[in-house]
Amino acid sequence: MIRLLGIDPGLRFTGWGLIEADGNRLRHLADGVIATDGEQDVPLRLKALHDALTALFAAWSPAEAAVEETYVNRSGSSTLKLGYARGVALLAPALSGIAVSEYGAMEVKRAVVGTGAATKDQVGMMVRRLLPGATIRRADAADALAVAICHAHHRQSRLRVASGTRMA
Amino acid sequence: MIRLLGIDPGLRFTGWGLIEADGNRLRHLADGVIATDGEQDVPLRLKALHDALTALFAAWSPAEAAVEETYVNRSGSSTLKLGYARGVALLAPALSGIAVSEYGAMEVKRAVVGTGAATKDQVGMMVRRLLPGATIRRADAADALAVAICHAHHRQSRLRVASGTRMA
Repeated sequence: MIRLLGIDPGLRFTGWGLIEADGNRLRHLADGVIATDGEQDVPLRLKALHDALTALFAAWSPAEAAVEETYVNRSGSSTLKLGYARGVALLAPALSGIAVSEYGAMEVKRAVVGTGAATKDQVGMMVRRLLPGATIRRADAADALAVAICHAHHRQSRLRVASGTRMA
Repeated sequence: MIRLLGIDPGLRFTGWGLIEADGNRLRHLADGVIATDGEQDVPLRLKALHDALTALFAAWSPAEAAVEETYVNRSGSSTLKLGYARGVALLAPALSGIAVSEYGAMEVKRAVVGTGAATKDQVGMMVRRLLPGATIRRADAADALAVAICHAHHRQSRLRVASGTRMA
């Protein structure tokens, strides 16, 4: 049984979702959205994001974290801002000694819906189906849970491969 | 008399330069380049950058920091990586309680050479002229010192305006 934290980073809104994985069985633990104040200077907003993530690690002790590598199709300045938030989302777990993996948006969709061409709505629907009983209100949180589910699947396949190798 | 740290961030190489400003008088204190290992995962590289910057703050106690906002004219994935490094360069001072300002490349060139159209060589030459006695070996460090000089000038103008307002 292992606790996994998914993070869908953004400078304005960062979704997070925490699941417990027991082999192929997944259970929803918690989710939410970290918002930063657009009126504040960027360094203070990054500090707010960092502090909120660090508080999450302390409260929930996830064993591993996973971050979505959003596809880049926006303007240079939007991409740079996304980079700030992703940088913090990758750094914060590292500073807390938590291993962090990265998954592309297509990989996440494939893991959750079965096809990399899935829509955002399909991802949200499947996240709710895979984590029954959870009330997930925010799209950013659903996306973060999708990353956590993707990580759980990839982890499980790696473990299977690793134990297969050991037995051979 | 105040110590100012300039930072020219990059995921591979981050230049830094420390100066002491006494009104309009500037003095070179130290400079260098923080390199991260391209073979390592991004989270560990960001942690290495963060740890090196935090060690610099502890060793030199700069009162304020300034970061160059590099002009964005590259591919999406390069811009994202630059964003990671800039995010860490903005976050690290904020976590250490050091105020951090951002300056565009044109502003830095204007402050150091007098024209926003200056070349990299001209910037390097003027940095060496404005900080006599300093041996600056690396271009990234010269760029970081240029940001520190730019911040010293802008700071000084703001103080002049502020004291003018107070006297009026």
